[in-house]
Amino acid sequence: MDFKAFLTSLGTSFVIFVVLMFLFTWLSRKPANYVVYYPNRILKGLDPFEGGKRTRNPFAWIREALSSTESDVIRMSGVDSAVYFVFLTTILAILVLSGLLLLPVLLPVAATDHSVLSANETSQGSFNDLDRLSLGHVGANSPRLWAFVVATYWVSLVAYFLLWKAYKHVSDLRAAALESPEVKAEQFAIVVRDIPPPPEGQTRKEQVDSYFKTIYPETFYRSMVVTDNAEVNKIYEELEGYKKKLARAEAIYAESKKTGNPEGTRPMNKIGFLGLFGQKVDSIEYYNQKINEFTPKLEAEQKVTLREKQQPSALVFFTSRVTAASASQSLHAQMVDTWTVLDAPEPRQLIWTNLPKKFYEREIRQYVVYIIVFLTIFFYMIPIGLISAFTTLENLKKLLPFTKPIVNQPVLSTVLQAYLPQLALIIFLALLPKFLLFLSKAEGIPSESHATRAASGKYFYFTVLNVFIGVTVGSTLFGTFKEIEKDPNSIVSLLATSLPKSATFFLTFVALKFFVGYGLELSRIVPLIIYHLKRKYLCKTEAEVKEAWAPGDLGYATRFAGDMLIVTIVLCYSVIAPIIIPFGVVYFGLGWLLLRNQVLKVYVPSFESYGRMWPHMYMRIMVALLLYQVTIAGFIGVKKFPYTVILIPLPILSVIFFVVCEKKFYRFFQTTALEVACKELKEIPNLEVVFRSFVPPSLSAEKTDDDQFEDALSQVSRTGSTL
Amino acid sequence: MDFKAFLTSLGTSFVIFVVLMFLFTWLSRKPANYVVYYPNRILKGLDPFEGGKRTRNPFAWIREALSSTESDVIRMSGVDSAVYFVFLTTILAILVLSGLLLLPVLLPVAATDHSVLSANETSQGSFNDLDRLSLGHVGANSPRLWAFVVATYWVSLVAYFLLWKAYKHVSDLRAAALESPEVKAEQFAIVVRDIPPPPEGQTRKEQVDSYFKTIYPETFYRSMVVTDNAEVNKIYEELEGYKKKLARAEAIYAESKKTGNPEGTRPMNKIGFLGLFGQKVDSIEYYNQKINEFTPKLEAEQKVTLREKQQPSALVFFTSRVTAASASQSLHAQMVDTWTVLDAPEPRQLIWTNLPKKFYEREIRQYVVYIIVFLTIFFYMIPIGLISAFTTLENLKKLLPFTKPIVNQPVLSTVLQAYLPQLALIIFLALLPKFLLFLSKAEGIPSESHATRAASGKYFYFTVLNVFIGVTVGSTLFGTFKEIEKDPNSIVSLLATSLPKSATFFLTFVALKFFVGYGLELSRIVPLIIYHLKRKYLCKTEAEVKEAWAPGDLGYATRFAGDMLIVTIVLCYSVIAPIIIPFGVVYFGLGWLLLRNQVLKVYVPSFESYGRMWPHMYMRIMVALLLYQVTIAGFIGVKKFPYTVILIPLPILSVIFFVVCEKKFYRFFQTTALEVACKELKEIPNLEVVFRSFVPPSLSAEKTDDDQFEDALSQVSRTGSTL
Repeated sequence: MDFKAFLTSLGTSFVIFVVLMFLFTWLSRKPANYVVYYPNRILKGLDPFEGGKRTRNPFAWIREALSSTESDVIRMSGVDSAVYFVFLTTILAILVLSGLLLLPVLLPVAATDHSVLSANETSQGSFNDLDRLSLGHVGANSPRLWAFVVATYWVSLVAYFLLWKAYKHVSDLRAAALESPEVKAEQFAIVVRDIPPPPEGQTRKEQVDSYFKTIYPETFYRSMVVTDNAEVNKIYEELEGYKKKLARAEAIYAESKKTGNPEGTRPMNKIGFLGLFGQKVDSIEYYNQKINEFTPKLEAEQKVTLREKQQPSALVFFTSRVTAASASQSLHAQMVDTWTVLDAPEPRQLIWTNLPKKFYEREIRQYVVYIIVFLTIFFYMIPIGLISAFTTLENLKKLLPFTKPIVNQPVLSTVLQAYLPQLALIIFLALLPKFLLFLSKAEGIPSESHATRAASGKYFYFTVLNVFIGVTVGSTLFGTFKEIEKDPNSIVSLLATSLPKSATFFLTFVALKFFVGYGLELSRIVPLIIYHLKRKYLCKTEAEVKEAWAPGDLGYATRFAGDMLIVTIVLCYSVIAPIIIPFGVVYFGLGWLLLRNQVLKVYVPSFESYGRMWPHMYMRIMVALLLYQVTIAGFIGVKKFPYTVILIPLPILSVIFFVVCEKKFYRFFQTTALEVACKELKEIPNLEVVFRSFVPPSLSAEKTDDDQFEDALSQVSRTGSTL
Repeated sequence: MDFKAFLTSLGTSFVIFVVLMFLFTWLSRKPANYVVYYPNRILKGLDPFEGGKRTRNPFAWIREALSSTESDVIRMSGVDSAVYFVFLTTILAILVLSGLLLLPVLLPVAATDHSVLSANETSQGSFNDLDRLSLGHVGANSPRLWAFVVATYWVSLVAYFLLWKAYKHVSDLRAAALESPEVKAEQFAIVVRDIPPPPEGQTRKEQVDSYFKTIYPETFYRSMVVTDNAEVNKIYEELEGYKKKLARAEAIYAESKKTGNPEGTRPMNKIGFLGLFGQKVDSIEYYNQKINEFTPKLEAEQKVTLREKQQPSALVFFTSRVTAASASQSLHAQMVDTWTVLDAPEPRQLIWTNLPKKFYEREIRQYVVYIIVFLTIFFYMIPIGLISAFTTLENLKKLLPFTKPIVNQPVLSTVLQAYLPQLALIIFLALLPKFLLFLSKAEGIPSESHATRAASGKYFYFTVLNVFIGVTVGSTLFGTFKEIEKDPNSIVSLLATSLPKSATFFLTFVALKFFVGYGLELSRIVPLIIYHLKRKYLCKTEAEVKEAWAPGDLGYATRFAGDMLIVTIVLCYSVIAPIIIPFGVVYFGLGWLLLRNQVLKVYVPSFESYGRMWPHMYMRIMVALLLYQVTIAGFIGVKKFPYTVILIPLPILSVIFFVVCEKKFYRFFQTTALEVACKELKEIPNLEVVFRSFVPPSLSAEKTDDDQFEDALSQVSRTGSTL
């Protein structure tokens, strides 16, 4: 790509961005769109506008975003979002501090070296303007390489310093959230798994109660045995579905009264498959009848589930945060594979079906999943290739004869023929995050946030390996396979020469990502259109409208992996082609600004893990840093620079830094430190409420006289410590 | 070594064993020797003979050993000794079960194969009788090799089965000991390290108390801040030394009254260097005066130590076992490198000087020690070579001129010249265990038992690498270095041919170890002679006599490493030369019998770690098993047997077995499970006694009004849980 094409691409992206910005300014001021642009504020019962007044200034949101504090973010969107901003700020700071030294020093050093230029002008054509500013332009064994060696150290040291500060800061954020005087249900509970079979004549519940009452005679509150809810969930969802449909039918009926016919038209529906076939009935009557039929069925099933479908897992509640925190860290049983404990996640993020999974089953599932992920990352092209080979037009015609008339048209046929393989790839890439999340849940992970973290990690390695390494190494390898065959040692020098060539590609990539990606993000064009379409043609009840504008959460798994790809690219090119740094700065600066707006006004977090995402972010930044250090060392080494050895301590330093950081901070992210949990609460916790918040909706009967839900407090023997 | 030499060596060893056995029978029946042969029983206040009656049967001890139960061992010598017998029994059972199949099957299979014999008779000379019974005697790609493949699996499966049972059994032993209703001081305490600097205006003690009182308002009892005791220990030891010397002087004086002179001779001593120079004084007066001088000095130093030499480490006592067990496993501080906790070891095995060592200092020390051990294991010949090169006779003459007349004698000179290098090696090997223990303590390990385990591990790797691998591989490598140079691939086949050759060497080695080693062990000739010499010429007081027969403990560090060397040798040769199995059986059978006697009657354990040695034993057996599996696979592979691949799953199976075992059992050996700690005590623990038992002797003043030792109970705020 030459310089002109690069500028054109940059310009186009920028124009799209400006257009989207204006769209945002215009659309977000229409009251009908408030639910799309301010859902988080609306759901929290706040006025869409800060302070309640609507300004005429189209850039007010920027001022608001800039003036918002970290505690605003925590209040509106939780610790996890605040941690995401720590990540953005840290990367931004690393890039700015690196740029301050690298841009004014390295660019002139590279540009004024003419040794390579003169040597290569004849053989490979002249360097373009961008390449002239990169390390590739510096001659072999030139003393100018010293500047690049120093720059490599500078970037690394800046990164260490800022990462250390960030880790400490996040740890404090987590501590502040955990020691808050608010009562949080999950801080009083632990999850118990792998409960051995109950002894003869004891129910599962009695077994769990007596076990924990013996160990915690004073602080044990009560237990909740996990049940197999598959059946009851099914009935519950059917019932809820009928309730929704009834509300919808009633709304339609009420509306029909207003328009023309004063008596209204009673809505009808068919009761067969998908509402397309079968007998036609009066909807309101039919749904009412169904609800009356399912309500006792649900109650009966609830009783059966609670009594007979108990699983070898339980939630145990304590009267004190310290005991719960300490219990979640302690070994309870002599055999480590029984009575395993972990701290309870929030009720909403519990993955109930994973709780009863057995110890070794979880282990084996984990290894199997790792193998599948490994294969997916390295050989994902194979199934896609097979699918696209299989989905040729000929096969399509054979298998789905009714497509014949369409496919036989010559124009369409050419287009399909050309795009079928790409279509397979696009579908695969779109489904990948969901597939990885599914795999992570299949590992037996008990909470949504944990599964998200696991999926995000898998997605990161997929992205970095396939996009970053794939583009640079892949293009080189395929382009010059014969040369490598002749001399295997030439691979290093080939890589080194190909790295700067890919720089322009990645510059465009980053620019596209921030201009078009962030433009779409802020303007929310897609959710806006979907919302208006749904409201107009589908939604009849208030609940349905609310569902239509539900904003969802930040989507850490894919968002963070995308950011990390940019981090990896920018870091690896920071010294080789420092011109990439401003692009990185804009990406993370703009990202910070936009997402501040989105987090404060749009997205509603679907869980809170108190910053447990951070150690994973930190680790992946360190992986990127290591990749960067090794790349540069290899690259400068190829330039036949004898002092490249000076760069060898850097990766070792990184590993030491990583280990020290993990030693100092990590365990607090796995468990709750007791000194944090022992802080006073602002009120005596209502443990009944704590307990109830963990009851799954399908089981929470209105009546409370059930045997599982009877007040267990009376059972707790309150023997004081006799000393 | 031919067969005749082998038999001669075996015969000689056996004769020595028989002589030592008779010596034991004769000597142990003399009442004057009871303190050497029955010290453990005497120290426990029991009669030397079981049931109090002296039998005339010289083999009564065998009957006693065989009829003793595991609980006898635990009662007389603790769980650690019982675990050592589990180790011996397990190995014995593995060897017996292996031998039952291997001996009747493999020996005939090997002996009746004539293919190699005929081929090799001309080139390498005939096989001797022993070699004929080994795998080396089977021809290449013979179907007879199937028997050896099956045998390899058999030994492994037997080992897995028995190790699993043993691990479970030891885990139960540990649980039984930990849940015993006896009050054990260490179960109520935790060790706290890395305490951050106290806040302004607070003493260290106040800081520790307030920290733990906040977290454990109901179960915190009191704390003991660790102090720098170097100075007070020095004064205390001097004082104790003078007390001993005074007792000795008084005993000498009393004795002198009996013999001849009715007024007695007052003993005199010189007060200069080593009692050899300086003024002569009356001993009794002099020591009395010294004691009077040091007693107030000690008291003053105790006060200063307690007040001013507080270190950032403490022992914290709780009123309940469960809380102590749970506290030792929980993360207390947000920063993992502060307020680190671990369960307290027994008071007698605390290494006080290691407690205040800082978190990262310990980490660094550990890595440094690992590097030193690695270098010691692989390059220990270098310093020894240097020393022996340096300590030639010429150098000796130059440096120590007074040795000239001795060294100049031609006979002596020759002997010295020949033995000086060996002497250096022997001294090195004798000092090695002490050096490794010193290194382990230098890591910053806080308890003696842990340091012993660490030293034992280091010694194991040293022994296996240098003796086993050294002898087999070393001899092969040096003997045929030129052949390897020509064809590097020949190293595997060379190894394979050299392994059976070393078999005879190791047979003799094992036989020597059990006949001579165990003979010396049982007869206790050396301790007996030392005791009698000391009693006759040195000991004057009762305390001195008692010290002279103090038996010491089993010496796990070296004993276990020695056993493991035999395990490794026997396992590795079990299939190659099955004739070694009976030797292994005798070694462990005889060892079990003898040590049962020694443990019940002689050795007094110096600490109790409740079986924490076991996971290390288990791991090393697994290492030996892996070594065995890889050796056999390589060996059969060299025989050009195409089905050798069948052996490849074995090492993988071993690793899986190891991981599963560790997952299931290991954590309980690191910490105390709460279900074990929550068992009831037979009495309400006297926490004052618990606390006092941890006060080091140099600090335990008679008076109790000291600020550290004041009753902390009154300070504990007893706020009940308000729910």
